[in-house]
Amino acid sequence: MRNPKVVILGAGYGGLMTVTRLQKMVSVNEADITLVNKHDYHYETTWLHEASAGTLHHDRCRYPIKDVIDTNKVNFVQDSVKLIKTDEKKVILENGELNYDYLVVALGAHPETFGIQGLKEYAFTISNINSARQIREHIEYQFATYNTEEEKDDTRLTIVVGGAGFTGIEFLGELANRVPELCREYDIDPKKVRIICVEAAPTALPGFDPELVEYAVNQLQRKGVEFRIGTAIKECTEQGIIVGKDDQTEEIKAGTVIWAAGVRGNSVIEESGFEAMRGRVKVEKDLRAPGHDDVFIIGDCSLIINEEINRPYPPTAQIAMQQGEVCARNLAALIRGKKELEPFKPDIKGTVASLGEDDAVGIALGKKMVGTKASFMKKMIDNRALYMVGGAGLVLKKGKFKFF
Amino acid sequence: MRNPKVVILGAGYGGLMTVTRLQKMVSVNEADITLVNKHDYHYETTWLHEASAGTLHHDRCRYPIKDVIDTNKVNFVQDSVKLIKTDEKKVILENGELNYDYLVVALGAHPETFGIQGLKEYAFTISNINSARQIREHIEYQFATYNTEEEKDDTRLTIVVGGAGFTGIEFLGELANRVPELCREYDIDPKKVRIICVEAAPTALPGFDPELVEYAVNQLQRKGVEFRIGTAIKECTEQGIIVGKDDQTEEIKAGTVIWAAGVRGNSVIEESGFEAMRGRVKVEKDLRAPGHDDVFIIGDCSLIINEEINRPYPPTAQIAMQQGEVCARNLAALIRGKKELEPFKPDIKGTVASLGEDDAVGIALGKKMVGTKASFMKKMIDNRALYMVGGAGLVLKKGKFKFF
Repeated sequence: MRNPKVVILGAGYGGLMTVTRLQKMVSVNEADITLVNKHDYHYETTWLHEASAGTLHHDRCRYPIKDVIDTNKVNFVQDSVKLIKTDEKKVILENGELNYDYLVVALGAHPETFGIQGLKEYAFTISNINSARQIREHIEYQFATYNTEEEKDDTRLTIVVGGAGFTGIEFLGELANRVPELCREYDIDPKKVRIICVEAAPTALPGFDPELVEYAVNQLQRKGVEFRIGTAIKECTEQGIIVGKDDQTEEIKAGTVIWAAGVRGNSVIEESGFEAMRGRVKVEKDLRAPGHDDVFIIGDCSLIINEEINRPYPPTAQIAMQQGEVCARNLAALIRGKKELEPFKPDIKGTVASLGEDDAVGIALGKKMVGTKASFMKKMIDNRALYMVGGAGLVLKKGKFKFF
Repeated sequence: MRNPKVVILGAGYGGLMTVTRLQKMVSVNEADITLVNKHDYHYETTWLHEASAGTLHHDRCRYPIKDVIDTNKVNFVQDSVKLIKTDEKKVILENGELNYDYLVVALGAHPETFGIQGLKEYAFTISNINSARQIREHIEYQFATYNTEEEKDDTRLTIVVGGAGFTGIEFLGELANRVPELCREYDIDPKKVRIICVEAAPTALPGFDPELVEYAVNQLQRKGVEFRIGTAIKECTEQGIIVGKDDQTEEIKAGTVIWAAGVRGNSVIEESGFEAMRGRVKVEKDLRAPGHDDVFIIGDCSLIINEEINRPYPPTAQIAMQQGEVCARNLAALIRGKKELEPFKPDIKGTVASLGEDDAVGIALGKKMVGTKASFMKKMIDNRALYMVGGAGLVLKKGKFKFF
């Protein structure tokens, strides 16, 4: 009798947690485990705003997958997933195919551009290591070019951030800290630089505690960030953006536009025929896709309803990792022929948004907190994610210890 | 009786040497000395190839002018020179005017593009701090962008260097060392990167000892540089360059084109009515402009004939600094009412071209040398230039000591 084949797609928070837990639970005689990922490294999606601003080197935000998987138990395939053929129990990769008995889809998110014209062509998104370092270099190139031109174009030094949600706010915090450094590096008068955040919703950080939102906005404004709240981006062009508010439109010229206003599930989900809302599949309690007893979907491709408010939980690393733990246990159960699977229930331990290296706002351990205390907590959360996947060794190697 | 006004235009090698020598020779009661420079810093033009490649930070290639001038004796005006009106003994600046009794024109060089179409628009030149760091950032941005694109465009990673003269060869040496670092930083297969040097003359380093030229070309080829010797750039486009050889033309697509094939004197020279060849004035023995007893022209704006071969000396830092010394003595003489001025005679102590951090070729102390020995000598030459302007303190601060 052959071992069941377990295939895990994606080495983000959810996929990697699944693999690292599963490899401890099952023996080589119980299952053949294969992990598929586009790159040979895992990256900390929740740290990419730092790499994008240039305040943390992108190599600090990633580590080799082989450092955390047990290569005696797990095969690693570096490839891109093109399609899942659930009827044939098969995954089509760019350079091959894989059969599975049990599949875990943890392919993460894609940027959601809501059909806004020009965003794909002209705006950057904080999506992965490649895009983060491109943003960093793009901004540096704009600053480097400014002084070489006879006719100075101040809009080169304008950076627009679309979206004042979690990613937008965290990126603004890093950027506001980075700009004075960039001005020194490229001999630029800081007064020439503008950072403008455009948010369509009536508030920054929608859904966050209003007192914390006010603190965050005030702190960022103090560092020079301009907010355009209740203002929608209508179009993105080579020169900047067109915004609209109360039937008025306005052009904001900007050398750099970063789109940080939302994500949707990986496009493979919809292309493979799963029923989805914005690429996210409303999974069963046990994290399996409806109608597919052999397919788990976790992380940003999954949708879980918060029953208290009857709205979906936002996709976060925290939920993805918790799903990974449950998914690993459920896989082990299936491998051992059990029929009863464990239901998933998120346990939201806290939410902290950083505002640069030494400031943050959030709720953790049931308490509202701001400033250095919140910043300390944020770093502990970042370190905890490393610990859960790679143990103390990974925390020592990649952790954040610059507390004060 | 008022003090004579001495105005020195430019704080490059020639201008700064003139000022730092003159301030030691004359008292505040003898002359009013004014130094005009576009920036408040001096930069080492001969190190800019390193800043451009990204192997040396641009801040290492500059120092504040106030660190080397005696501000009790010298007024510093930060401004750009627009025009010299010799008949009115006046200099027109962007933001003002200055009268002079004695003028020193040390305004340096501009790139010479020989009328080649598209060079000004699409090629970078290694001209100053601003352009050097723009080149560095441009190349980094090309590398950063490569992996973000679905359709990979390998020509993004092609760097064309126009000219295999001194600057071209030195830049190639740095670039060949830098590329492996860039490939690691941006996850790029080094095989995808091309460095192509195009030179119209029948040899690299024209005028250099053929044995040394062979060594240099071999070393650079070993590091992956491709040479197209006897090949002229016909046009530069947004996509790269068009080259011609033996009536054949060819397009070389490249994400980066650096033009390093020659300089001419600052355009202010010709605009101010001085008789000049490519912006360089054939000065009298005492370094004054023909017909202008009150105007010295030194450095890259001056032209001195090497009588042994009846051809002009190439413009170098070495000659500019030696001219600065003579110019300072001649100014002091004029200030003190002497009529007899000292003639200038270049004393070429050696010429060494670096091929990256640890390799070089050249002639110094009358000997041909290559490799680490030549590289050591090159760094001593760089340190000597610092010593002559700013003494031991400046050498300690900005000198090159990474010998092996």
